[in-house]
Amino acid sequence: MPRVKHFINDRNDIVTEALDAAVLLGEGKVARLDGYPAIKVLVRTDADRSHVALVSGGGAGHEPSHAGFVGEGMLTAAVCGEIFASPSVDAVLAGILAATGDAGCLLIVKNYTGDRLNFGLAAERARALGVDVEMVVVADDIAIADATRPRGLAGTLFVHKVAGHVARSGGTLREVKAAAERVATSVRSLGISLSSCTIPGQPAPARLGADEVELGLGIHGEPGAEKLAYRPIVELAATMAKRLDDALGDTKLPLALLVNDLGGVPPIEMAVATRALASALKREIALVLGPDRLMTSLDMKGLSVSVLPVDAELVRALRADVAPRAWPRGRALANVAPLPLPDALRPKTYTASANAGCRRVVETACRTLLGLEAELNALDAKIGDGDTGSTFATASRALLAELDRLPFGDPPALCASVADRLSTVMGGSSGILLSIGVAAMGAAVHEAASKNAAAPDTIDWAKALHEGARRIQQYGGAALGDRTMLDALLPAAAALEAGAGLTAAAAAARRGADLTATMTRARAGRSSYVPPEALRGVADPGAVAMAAVFEAIAR
Amino acid sequence: MPRVKHFINDRNDIVTEALDAAVLLGEGKVARLDGYPAIKVLVRTDADRSHVALVSGGGAGHEPSHAGFVGEGMLTAAVCGEIFASPSVDAVLAGILAATGDAGCLLIVKNYTGDRLNFGLAAERARALGVDVEMVVVADDIAIADATRPRGLAGTLFVHKVAGHVARSGGTLREVKAAAERVATSVRSLGISLSSCTIPGQPAPARLGADEVELGLGIHGEPGAEKLAYRPIVELAATMAKRLDDALGDTKLPLALLVNDLGGVPPIEMAVATRALASALKREIALVLGPDRLMTSLDMKGLSVSVLPVDAELVRALRADVAPRAWPRGRALANVAPLPLPDALRPKTYTASANAGCRRVVETACRTLLGLEAELNALDAKIGDGDTGSTFATASRALLAELDRLPFGDPPALCASVADRLSTVMGGSSGILLSIGVAAMGAAVHEAASKNAAAPDTIDWAKALHEGARRIQQYGGAALGDRTMLDALLPAAAALEAGAGLTAAAAAARRGADLTATMTRARAGRSSYVPPEALRGVADPGAVAMAAVFEAIAR
Repeated sequence: MPRVKHFINDRNDIVTEALDAAVLLGEGKVARLDGYPAIKVLVRTDADRSHVALVSGGGAGHEPSHAGFVGEGMLTAAVCGEIFASPSVDAVLAGILAATGDAGCLLIVKNYTGDRLNFGLAAERARALGVDVEMVVVADDIAIADATRPRGLAGTLFVHKVAGHVARSGGTLREVKAAAERVATSVRSLGISLSSCTIPGQPAPARLGADEVELGLGIHGEPGAEKLAYRPIVELAATMAKRLDDALGDTKLPLALLVNDLGGVPPIEMAVATRALASALKREIALVLGPDRLMTSLDMKGLSVSVLPVDAELVRALRADVAPRAWPRGRALANVAPLPLPDALRPKTYTASANAGCRRVVETACRTLLGLEAELNALDAKIGDGDTGSTFATASRALLAELDRLPFGDPPALCASVADRLSTVMGGSSGILLSIGVAAMGAAVHEAASKNAAAPDTIDWAKALHEGARRIQQYGGAALGDRTMLDALLPAAAALEAGAGLTAAAAAARRGADLTATMTRARAGRSSYVPPEALRGVADPGAVAMAAVFEAIAR
Repeated sequence: MPRVKHFINDRNDIVTEALDAAVLLGEGKVARLDGYPAIKVLVRTDADRSHVALVSGGGAGHEPSHAGFVGEGMLTAAVCGEIFASPSVDAVLAGILAATGDAGCLLIVKNYTGDRLNFGLAAERARALGVDVEMVVVADDIAIADATRPRGLAGTLFVHKVAGHVARSGGTLREVKAAAERVATSVRSLGISLSSCTIPGQPAPARLGADEVELGLGIHGEPGAEKLAYRPIVELAATMAKRLDDALGDTKLPLALLVNDLGGVPPIEMAVATRALASALKREIALVLGPDRLMTSLDMKGLSVSVLPVDAELVRALRADVAPRAWPRGRALANVAPLPLPDALRPKTYTASANAGCRRVVETACRTLLGLEAELNALDAKIGDGDTGSTFATASRALLAELDRLPFGDPPALCASVADRLSTVMGGSSGILLSIGVAAMGAAVHEAASKNAAAPDTIDWAKALHEGARRIQQYGGAALGDRTMLDALLPAAAALEAGAGLTAAAAAARRGADLTATMTRARAGRSSYVPPEALRGVADPGAVAMAAVFEAIAR
């Protein structure tokens, strides 16, 4: 059995170190009681002592329950045991005494024998000391049909929240207890799991087969009430919804739905599951809490669903803001229709238009690249996967086939349509990068055009080309000297912008392309994955292609 | 390779179903764009169109990033790809166009080639349509020392937050971009993992041995930069802190620290790890974000740490409240000293005092139980583990040994001291339950005493006994007929309260004890785990013990 790894130190210190973290991140609003390791109690420092104190707790391993719910509007103190073990009577008594003022204290206890007895005895001791203490036991699990002592699960959090709201509103101990009991007796929960949990220091459990899930599990790694076949979540959700519906009986109230990640379910799966559960429950849903990790079972890949029939008063209590971040904001379901796609996204149609100069440039470039297919492939084969020639040729063929439909008389549209073809037909990073370059040229032209409605022949193509090269550089991350097409493109663009003319630009491009054969340290582009010795003496095929195009256009 | 189970339906629908859930739980403040499955864009419906739009995104599987951060104060839209795959250019363009008003749009992109190119081309297309778009690339990973293109990790969230703050404050596109770039260039991140992630539809990875952890991993399941030996988290944290410290260089600014659960770390371990990390970083920490699942890698059991040097302005930007619940509230570290234990918890000392009647009752009860040790054990052996007699005898011996030190003249103190001994010496559930009963008697006596300063002989012991029995029933969960000591105790208490006298009470207790031999369906207590046929004809040893005690006292 392989050792299971955990982000911990000594496993006997897990709970105290986690409580220390809660204090460290508690913004001064929580403190722990002295008395480690026997007494592990987190208590509010900012509590209004004239309000009823709420104390809960139990074994650790269920975080954020319960220490994460200590704060204004929820618990006054949380009493923590070791992992999955009830805290001692002394620890509970310490929590009660530290948290309670004149208004008394309500204990909220999950229905496990150890918790019930230890919290119970502590309550009696506190009473003997003259403290007014009441206790509510939560037994929300519906896993076992005729269970006389159902377990307490995440439905307990509804009790924390509602009791917290009544206590904060100044309710008396009797009122707080009555509100807590109303919730405790009407909440129903059910868990489902794909795997059990791993307790630090113990081997990984292997209880469930690859085609099994457990329904009706507890939060301490105990086996579920039954095994089901692994099915899509819509089917599992339907099974759970049916059980919960039966357990709810004939109440006509809408439901608050709490969806709890038992620890190991990725958020994206919890989202998928919540959608399935909300749709499977055939009752009105007033409020959804979660999905979130609320009462976990360490790293268990499972979830639990808790449902509570709610009237307006309970909805108000559940929605009230509280200090603990661990409490999820209650949200009503929203049915928002999809927004229509922006018009500009519809397949673009361009009206063909004529401009002999532009057409000649495009046609020359394409025919040049077609003619270089074999040569460029051979060059690329020495340093890469040998397809540079084919990639350029594919794009060239597609553009040549469309020549009669391109808007040569409308330069921004021309650039946009060529960019479209490059990104969809050419493929690969170089296709996207060339598309980026041409689209950027189009944007530059568009900007100039909107300023002075320029005709194709008055456009500053040198500046547009420079802008295109700049964008290729920006998004691709390559610089001059990285053995990419930029090593030809940038010198050519610079020459053009300096007014040196097309022939000089072509010569600059060729010099740049030749230089790539001497570059052996590429920080970006295809050559960055190739050892230097393989690069020496081989020109970059992208740069060679660019140089050839400039030369052809210059002729 | 076993099949890995997930809470999903068809794996091709995971991302769209999760986005549907985000809309469903989005309180009407987010919508998706039409165009599933190609276009997966979540966009705010409540955005102020005069503010700069923020658009981010990338592959899915990193939830809550990025869709979970769409909302007031953070992103205007999130563009989602499939799991770990960049969204298409069309999808990004759709997001830009749907989100952007007159103030323009900032794209925040993690440094992966696919994202950079697809977001880049979409930006160029949007520009060609006249939209003002800028882009910031985040490359915060420090895993590889001389990486020319570091990956984008959870540090990206700092950029979202700060840019969101400036945009909400009415900043221009240049101002928003400048703020984003300042954060992007100064944030540093490092990940560590105990196991890799499981992609739905693919087998579970098994890259790491039981004694290995990976340092410097990405968020797509790719291998980490190096393997380390599995060590306690304080040591791993020290290693990470050293690397981050080196990467930060000589800035004198305090840090904002973001602790990110990569998906599969239980909250209790994240708390332990955060404490270790905060202590290992030898720099001033102004603010902690998390620990929380912020930018996950599906179910990876790993975490990442991001550090950002912050001035007062950045602290303000990071602390500002935002709508997305996924954003963790920034918190300063708090050093709160442990609170002293309540005085009442110190070991109690009682002053011995005399009352012949009380002493006789306690002594008689103890001697009776001692005499029954073998008989009760034999009875229990038929239905349980055969130790009831020994359990009662142990408690009796302890009390007899203390007879001269008990406060017989002070009934509340007497009950409290006896209850103390029972819970610590007797052990087991029955020890705690008897302790609860006696403590409750003490509380009842205390209450009566505080009303009229009653002496031992004037106390209504019948009422106190009834109260004790009631508490045993309440905390133990057993009722009359469940084959427990209550079947003798409750009839005796009722007889006493009715004024029938001790002899009648003893007779009632005996009748109750005898009846337990006919009870075969127990819903609580030790017998609830025993089949009915084994119970028939065997009296409950607890009830027999109680009956014998009442009879002895009555004599």
